[in-house]
Amino acid sequence: MKSSILSVGTELLFGQIVNTNTVFLSKELNLLGIDVMSHHTVGDNPKRLAESIPQLFLDCDLILTTGGLGPTQDDLTKETVCETMHDTLVLHQPTKDNIEAYFKELGRTITENNYKQAYFPSRAVIFPNPVGTAPGFALEDNGKTIICMPGPPREMKAMYEEEIKPFLIKDSEDVIHYKMLRFFGIGEALLETELLDLIDGQSDPTLATYAKEGECSVRVTSKRKTQAEAEKAVEEMIEKAKQRVGQYLFSTEDEEFHEAIGRKLIQRGISISSAESCTGGMFAEALTSVSGISAVFDRSLVTYSNRAKVEELGVKQETLDRFGAVSEETAIEMAQGLKKVSGSRLCISVTGIAGPEGGSHEKPVGLVYICAILDEKIHCKGTNMRNLGRHWNRNYAKLLMFQAVKQLLESEA
Amino acid sequence: MKSSILSVGTELLFGQIVNTNTVFLSKELNLLGIDVMSHHTVGDNPKRLAESIPQLFLDCDLILTTGGLGPTQDDLTKETVCETMHDTLVLHQPTKDNIEAYFKELGRTITENNYKQAYFPSRAVIFPNPVGTAPGFALEDNGKTIICMPGPPREMKAMYEEEIKPFLIKDSEDVIHYKMLRFFGIGEALLETELLDLIDGQSDPTLATYAKEGECSVRVTSKRKTQAEAEKAVEEMIEKAKQRVGQYLFSTEDEEFHEAIGRKLIQRGISISSAESCTGGMFAEALTSVSGISAVFDRSLVTYSNRAKVEELGVKQETLDRFGAVSEETAIEMAQGLKKVSGSRLCISVTGIAGPEGGSHEKPVGLVYICAILDEKIHCKGTNMRNLGRHWNRNYAKLLMFQAVKQLLESEA
Repeated sequence: MKSSILSVGTELLFGQIVNTNTVFLSKELNLLGIDVMSHHTVGDNPKRLAESIPQLFLDCDLILTTGGLGPTQDDLTKETVCETMHDTLVLHQPTKDNIEAYFKELGRTITENNYKQAYFPSRAVIFPNPVGTAPGFALEDNGKTIICMPGPPREMKAMYEEEIKPFLIKDSEDVIHYKMLRFFGIGEALLETELLDLIDGQSDPTLATYAKEGECSVRVTSKRKTQAEAEKAVEEMIEKAKQRVGQYLFSTEDEEFHEAIGRKLIQRGISISSAESCTGGMFAEALTSVSGISAVFDRSLVTYSNRAKVEELGVKQETLDRFGAVSEETAIEMAQGLKKVSGSRLCISVTGIAGPEGGSHEKPVGLVYICAILDEKIHCKGTNMRNLGRHWNRNYAKLLMFQAVKQLLESEA
Repeated sequence: MKSSILSVGTELLFGQIVNTNTVFLSKELNLLGIDVMSHHTVGDNPKRLAESIPQLFLDCDLILTTGGLGPTQDDLTKETVCETMHDTLVLHQPTKDNIEAYFKELGRTITENNYKQAYFPSRAVIFPNPVGTAPGFALEDNGKTIICMPGPPREMKAMYEEEIKPFLIKDSEDVIHYKMLRFFGIGEALLETELLDLIDGQSDPTLATYAKEGECSVRVTSKRKTQAEAEKAVEEMIEKAKQRVGQYLFSTEDEEFHEAIGRKLIQRGISISSAESCTGGMFAEALTSVSGISAVFDRSLVTYSNRAKVEELGVKQETLDRFGAVSEETAIEMAQGLKKVSGSRLCISVTGIAGPEGGSHEKPVGLVYICAILDEKIHCKGTNMRNLGRHWNRNYAKLLMFQAVKQLLESEA
């Protein structure tokens, strides 16, 4: 099947937001074996939208749209698609009920424009919005199908996973199975080099590498007649990859580093606390995003000022004066002090220079010290991160913390 | 002038890379007063590219393309554009000389396909590539213009700044100026209702509303003969909007809530600490992402367990037993305890149920209490957030904390 992706939203034409929806949908459609022929973006302009649709259908059988399904008057995707596909809008009572229940719960007044969201083309298959108010829909006309989704990426992705993907899969012949292998501590170029003969020598499973903010991933994909065959092919390939780069692998489940670590901590019932300086709470924020983490996570003391390090963690003023807040000595005292106050089995500390200010020749921006203690075992390490800006530096320091936890857990397993 | 942006590259249709070129060019063209009517992406496919061009010209006078200018056999943008614009390729001697000099310097042998880059349409204006080998060009035919640029963002941006922008400015008439107004605590539909006559009654400035994860924005845009006129028109409109919905406005500078608040705290030199439970460090993480915040931010005590609340903040065990960890009483004791240990002028606490587990009929998922103290002033509030999942709930609780800080700062100003 051939498809096109049509994004609707004037904000895109102003360059105010990056169109990540198109990237997500392109990846997903390709994984289902649906070719993506082109991407298009138009503003909140019904005339241009109406003209685009027949034009795109010259070249494909399926159009996926995102955006323009909201309650406001410039949200006109539904109305325009309905007309172009020769249908009429009718009231969809379940959606109307949902909207009313939603506003009642919030104690807000329903404005007239909110009801607009309850009308749908009469022949449409309606997709509930798992995380928002605007439902999506699929509408067929003359052998061609349009699927309309909301624009906010969170809503679009949730709807795709829960509704659209199952809707698309029912027409597919082969089974596609894939796994995402997630790595930290190895660059994409080196990862590709290590796996090169597997990447080049194979038509199925295929391997594709991706990089994102300090991490990288390999997608292993197999397209076979049955699910079992595809799964077996993928698993065999993963074993081959593990033999070469297994030490950097943190997950085969396409989960974030903090999710993989959080899950392990919960499984093994290891209590954990953190003492953060430069990351400012990022480590705790990431770990507590894992549902069920309260079983093992006790506290994080974000001691940003030196005074807080002394008062909360018992870091010695002398240590700060002599070695500085960003030093191995301070990192160790932070972790040891945390151990004393929290009693958690695993205690981890971080102190570093996130920038853009605060660096020096001796201690440049990007320098970070991490100390992790598991029971009696203590592991402290300094790293000179590549300085790629405050946001990147903080995020990378957080990833280094999860790497330190991973290594301690592996050494103890 | 009306324009369209046409990206060429099969890798985009696979979702392998995010199309940041389009974002960059859209912003830049809008700033020059050139309307961007649409974005399009096609693969490395000359037929589809050739079909797109006349189609896009129905709607605009200017097309900017990126990608497909390299030396390899699938780089066919130049050849296709040349044919579509009724011109023929001729050798461009200065480019040929450059290529030969470049390869000589590198000590590499020139392969035949490298010479492909030295041929250009006979009527083209050629733009040197400041940071790569593939030059760009502009070609006019019948009152319509195509500008072709390389695909790698670094090359495209450098060429745009040094060559394309000066080329475009000579044709530009109007100046566009805009501001983004950022709101929290009002839904997009209600915001539009409050501003409806301003949105409908105006052709300049124009107002457009946007929503994202619990916040919304209004873009106020004016297109005038001079920068001063456009700025004045935008400022006058902002004043009108402020009179109606000013209480929800947190920034006119298109910055995040935490950036706006962080900046105010730094400006006014107000020290701040936080005590977080359900947000798990998100408040501190957001605030410490602001460069320079160390001047005022002291610490965040992420007291996830009850024991941590008692030990770090002096919350009474009796309070936890009687009212529960998620209660107004606990929130108040957390903030008061934090005040005692940190001495910060502004102390804020949060406790809530992020879900998906842990809710009950009396205390459902989404219930959150926030207590903020500024000097002697204390403000505590419970909110029943709409339960849209753990991530959303935690993020919304964080935004409510910034709202509480904003309100305290305003009451004191």
